[in-house]
Amino acid sequence: MKIIGIDPGSTRAGYGVIEFHAQSATFIDGGIFSVTSSHNHQRLKELYDECHTLFKHHCPDVVGMEKLFFGKNIKTATDVSQSRGVIALCIAQYNIPLYEFTPLEVKQGMTGYGSADKKSITRMVQGTLHLPPTFAHVPDDVFDALAIALIAGYTATKERHHSL
Amino acid sequence: MKIIGIDPGSTRAGYGVIEFHAQSATFIDGGIFSVTSSHNHQRLKELYDECHTLFKHHCPDVVGMEKLFFGKNIKTATDVSQSRGVIALCIAQYNIPLYEFTPLEVKQGMTGYGSADKKSITRMVQGTLHLPPTFAHVPDDVFDALAIALIAGYTATKERHHSL
Repeated sequence: MKIIGIDPGSTRAGYGVIEFHAQSATFIDGGIFSVTSSHNHQRLKELYDECHTLFKHHCPDVVGMEKLFFGKNIKTATDVSQSRGVIALCIAQYNIPLYEFTPLEVKQGMTGYGSADKKSITRMVQGTLHLPPTFAHVPDDVFDALAIALIAGYTATKERHHSL
Repeated sequence: MKIIGIDPGSTRAGYGVIEFHAQSATFIDGGIFSVTSSHNHQRLKELYDECHTLFKHHCPDVVGMEKLFFGKNIKTATDVSQSRGVIALCIAQYNIPLYEFTPLEVKQGMTGYGSADKKSITRMVQGTLHLPPTFAHVPDDVFDALAIALIAGYTATKERHHSL
């Protein structure tokens, strides 16, 4: 099962692509969507194009995306929501099942407790996907996206077993 | 100058199309985007398709859209932001100039004061566009969208004069 995880942010969004099996998961790809325009609606267009290119290239069976976390910054919340809207649109256009998780669910799913810090998540992702030490330089957003992909994998597998 | 005004909501979005000249403005079209799915990301796809059809049909010179008004309901705010993201994407794809206004700016622009009620806006839109009494049955969202289109028209005209 090929899974793409997406961690949408206000200024940038990370993605991670994995091949997921019940007993193992392997890293395929990961990065930050290249969005450079300073105009908000041009940024959405760039994000849409990047997202389409990624889906077309990888043909995922499932997509996982982080649900919006509400900080105190309303401007950030609306910017992230607009980006999420464009990504969700792409997912609908490719007709891919979407799984959504709160940051808390991702933390609990990866480490077993909700107060885990970024480093614990990174370590768990690195261990689960057997990533080489060079990945220490990869941005957090990519690790978060890979964690979301893994949780989406666990969830989708569980659902499939239930429906058997 | 052909203008489309859009009033994005969480459950539905209104649009209004006008032909705008310095001395007069005429009604061309207005309605509610037909979005029926109960699945959030399918709704975004329907909204995107509807928006594209509208822009393709009318080829507007300018689009006006209401900026997000923050009520107490965070869920509503994110839903509206996601819809706004998809509409802004369409606008960017058609490369149409976008003007954005707060509800307060629309009220002040149409009636001269910010505490105007829905009825005053409706009356001003009806008078300015010489709409027949049958429009009394048209939903508020459409009147709001037409008001936004008018304000976008005033703003774009002013800017053009400034740049002469």
